[in-house]
Amino acid sequence: MSGFEDLGGLDRRRIWEGIHARVVHGERMSLGVVELDPGAVALEHSHPHEQFGLVLSGSIRFTIGDETRELGPGDLYVIPGEVPHTAEAGPEGTVVIDVFSPVREEWRTAESADPAEPRWPE
Amino acid sequence: MSGFEDLGGLDRRRIWEGIHARVVHGERMSLGVVELDPGAVALEHSHPHEQFGLVLSGSIRFTIGDETRELGPGDLYVIPGEVPHTAEAGPEGTVVIDVFSPVREEWRTAESADPAEPRWPE
Repeated sequence: MSGFEDLGGLDRRRIWEGIHARVVHGERMSLGVVELDPGAVALEHSHPHEQFGLVLSGSIRFTIGDETRELGPGDLYVIPGEVPHTAEAGPEGTVVIDVFSPVREEWRTAESADPAEPRWPE
Repeated sequence: MSGFEDLGGLDRRRIWEGIHARVVHGERMSLGVVELDPGAVALEHSHPHEQFGLVLSGSIRFTIGDETRELGPGDLYVIPGEVPHTAEAGPEGTVVIDVFSPVREEWRTAESADPAEPRWPE
């Protein structure tokens, strides 16, 4: 795509249990605004894509390799390709941005979820 | 880099007059949290990098090619490589995320600015 989108106009897709994303894809990157329900867990996984993230709201306990941190709004994470990582949302849930390069192809076809209002911005 | 950063711990760099960024670079991407002073202008420019952006706070008038929009929090923009674009911050200024692929090398060496508290999150 090229141009402008508003978050609420993007398809809401189920990534994992309790984790949904609204995603834009380009030629080199994918950018997702990802909502995690309270306590939702992204089990340890890895992928060849480089991943950057920024917490927009709420809190999340994030592990990259063998380092774990409690993150809140304004905290950034950088995950090189193939490095295992896991995350668990705090008690109010969390909204993060995740950016990937190359394109996260499997997110194009992730299951569509029921529409809902974006949780961020409030 | 790999791991965790907090926004306030990143160098604040001058990109243009009234426009500063805190940036992380990887192997394939650069992610900047960019603060524009009220009325600050990014003159028309283009670059080979694909660029995605998301408005975090404030307002910005953005032009991509021949399409212009007024954007606020939660609005996204996608700029393919080499497409001319320009932006002007609203009266309260704005904070946006800009992500580039490949790495925006010239932002590594952009002039360091005086330290300041990040304007977002508030």
